[in-house]
Amino acid sequence: MDISHIEHIGIAVKDLEASIRFYEDVLGLTCYAIAEVADQKVKTAFFQVGQTKVELLESTDPEGPIGKFIEKKGEGVHHMAFAVKGIEQSLARLDEKGIRLIDQKPRKGAEGLDIAFLHPKSTHGVLMELCEKK
Amino acid sequence: MDISHIEHIGIAVKDLEASIRFYEDVLGLTCYAIAEVADQKVKTAFFQVGQTKVELLESTDPEGPIGKFIEKKGEGVHHMAFAVKGIEQSLARLDEKGIRLIDQKPRKGAEGLDIAFLHPKSTHGVLMELCEKK
Repeated sequence: MDISHIEHIGIAVKDLEASIRFYEDVLGLTCYAIAEVADQKVKTAFFQVGQTKVELLESTDPEGPIGKFIEKKGEGVHHMAFAVKGIEQSLARLDEKGIRLIDQKPRKGAEGLDIAFLHPKSTHGVLMELCEKK
Repeated sequence: MDISHIEHIGIAVKDLEASIRFYEDVLGLTCYAIAEVADQKVKTAFFQVGQTKVELLESTDPEGPIGKFIEKKGEGVHHMAFAVKGIEQSLARLDEKGIRLIDQKPRKGAEGLDIAFLHPKSTHGVLMELCEKK
């Protein structure tokens, strides 16, 4: 697999507005985008930190994936996303190696990227995402 | 605070050897260093991914911080470390803002960096580390 960098870190938060204030006023970062992703039942806020983005995720529904994550584990890092070249080939090779894929094929994610998730049971505990900008 | 990039992501794992194999054989990354940090009761393995390192952490003692983390939350992302300029001044300003500091002053961490941790109760759930290379 051809990973160039960490594209983003997804962080589950209970209160997006309060969290944005912390990242801006305390850490000195700048929120450059806020978006609602209806099918994932989240509101998101993005910060650029060098090569990598921080993506804050607030659930819009307790039954959504972020709502369930927070109920089980509390606020914290939800997933880690790698920027890859050749996402389809990467997924095919992971599948051959017996890695459990949440997405068998890439789908469209935030910011127009092609994305796919790997199951944390196959990655030693981290929900991992592959991203490609085409 | 003057954050330039994400210095590393610390990931708690149960089995360092098996996890290194996953990051190398499946993700295609290269482990460039393995070290034991006796006072933190961990063995660590490092991978460079663009600007950021992935630091795998296996506990050498169930009563150590990583052992307790895994018992409570399972394997997964343990902390996120920011590269900053002026770590002493950053800590002083965070303290003024009422942020709970685990380390009031920088101490020496892996790879000779000056480091200090912020308490996740003050950061919306993420154990954060500041790092400076002097």
